[in-house]
Amino acid sequence: MAGLAEIVEAGLLIPTGTRGVYGRSAAFEDVRRGVARLVSTLAEPDRPERMSFPPVLARRQLESIGYLKSFPHLAGTIFSFEGGEPEAAEQESRAGRHEEWSEFQRMTDLVLVPAACYPVYPAVAARGQLSTGGVAIDAGSAYVFRREPDDDPMRMQMFHQRELVRIGEPETVVAWRNEWRDRGIALLHSLGLDVEYGVASDPFFGRGGRMLAAEQRERELKFEIAVRLPGRAPTAIASFNYHEDHFSSAFDIRTASGDTAHSACLGFGEERIVLSLLQAHGIEIERWPAAVRHRLWEETP
Amino acid sequence: MAGLAEIVEAGLLIPTGTRGVYGRSAAFEDVRRGVARLVSTLAEPDRPERMSFPPVLARRQLESIGYLKSFPHLAGTIFSFEGGEPEAAEQESRAGRHEEWSEFQRMTDLVLVPAACYPVYPAVAARGQLSTGGVAIDAGSAYVFRREPDDDPMRMQMFHQRELVRIGEPETVVAWRNEWRDRGIALLHSLGLDVEYGVASDPFFGRGGRMLAAEQRERELKFEIAVRLPGRAPTAIASFNYHEDHFSSAFDIRTASGDTAHSACLGFGEERIVLSLLQAHGIEIERWPAAVRHRLWEETP
Repeated sequence: MAGLAEIVEAGLLIPTGTRGVYGRSAAFEDVRRGVARLVSTLAEPDRPERMSFPPVLARRQLESIGYLKSFPHLAGTIFSFEGGEPEAAEQESRAGRHEEWSEFQRMTDLVLVPAACYPVYPAVAARGQLSTGGVAIDAGSAYVFRREPDDDPMRMQMFHQRELVRIGEPETVVAWRNEWRDRGIALLHSLGLDVEYGVASDPFFGRGGRMLAAEQRERELKFEIAVRLPGRAPTAIASFNYHEDHFSSAFDIRTASGDTAHSACLGFGEERIVLSLLQAHGIEIERWPAAVRHRLWEETP
Repeated sequence: MAGLAEIVEAGLLIPTGTRGVYGRSAAFEDVRRGVARLVSTLAEPDRPERMSFPPVLARRQLESIGYLKSFPHLAGTIFSFEGGEPEAAEQESRAGRHEEWSEFQRMTDLVLVPAACYPVYPAVAARGQLSTGGVAIDAGSAYVFRREPDDDPMRMQMFHQRELVRIGEPETVVAWRNEWRDRGIALLHSLGLDVEYGVASDPFFGRGGRMLAAEQRERELKFEIAVRLPGRAPTAIASFNYHEDHFSSAFDIRTASGDTAHSACLGFGEERIVLSLLQAHGIEIERWPAAVRHRLWEETP
């Protein structure tokens, strides 16, 4: 059983001088891509449309969906320089001495993407009313940002979500989410991970957030698959989220019958899955169980 | 010959409500990945070490390499919320009305990565002195940010660089860059693109920047390959940069003989290459010349 310190020491993750931000070695990436490919194979019956988005989002969209009510502490906003040559010179002079230079930076119209599904909703909305049965979207493997600086590599500030989205009639969306919960458990078991499944809640901010979390649990809007590893509490490596009409109302997405659509998304935390595999099977990837290696690389979809 | 508006209309790029930020369709991504794979094949003789970094960087590193002297106008800095529940409530209230809420955001220790090679230098420096011959690093396909909002899809704010880096003795580094210039021209020709090669300069900021640009040209530190497409000036789609000791001095990277190393990097602009192919060969990718399709997808490395 490999420890996280050992994984970093082996060069599988490359420290970058700031907490929760790592480079990835070729071996780490090969495992991560293997996991992503397995999710693609699982998604085939849905015949999803693939869309890929960069890790930045229009700020207005974050404002419109109420992210700053639920997760103000996790959001990253993008600022840039405004000024002329004297201000640029002063900014550079202070930056060169590693002193404060934030006063020269102004908020832009961009923020970092906090969940890989967020750009999907306005893109689907822009096409007009859905057809019967709605849409399945594969948002690929995308970098997302959460402002949670931490020394534990299982909690990164920037990591890949392997994300899928379903938008349509409520019963279609709920059935899809439940199907994927089972697919997800089977996938992670097949990789030799000891996982458990349960109702979960998001890390909502503040006192009001505790109420939101309790309500989310009571209504079973979020399921998570957590991995059991020695020396740590079960840690979520996949989540399955039913949004009801949260996103569809914000962007006015309607079903074929004209009702506001419902949506659900699911995300596999790719780096957490790779780290779990390294902890479960050891840092010598070439010595992992043959069945796991076969699943990751040798099965042709 | 397809126009850029036609490419967006065909859904190959997906508008996101903010200039220079697009989603990519499955077809767009398949071409982009084909281009990236061709660069990997070209890189095989270098036997590069693969490293992948997320699109955020320690702010201190941007300060240390003088980026804010040369390109203050292009940098993106990351801010996040600091405050308690009252401040969060006021921030959310203003954001919900799409009013100003920047005062609740504070500069973090992170910035957006402006060039895919930047995280490589401190990672190599951390390993200590180089061996004879130095190192070749493949930084993969990485998203980078430039604060240049523009309606022209050929100028995105967030795009993929396919980047390689060489660090070592000056003559090794210069020979590598020259070799890649020829490889790059051959690659882009083989995709049916009409390209030209020349000495170039970076878009340095301000009056001082004009002097830096003139010096860069005079010393032939930057080469670019530009594509010739109807209706637009030649547009750079790859660049080949000799940094001399710029990065190695900042991070104290030394050769086997103890001298400060030199470095060079090269980057292919993946989205610009895909857009160039769509403009040159048409938006119906299945009707592209067989030789181009073969190069992109059917050759096994």
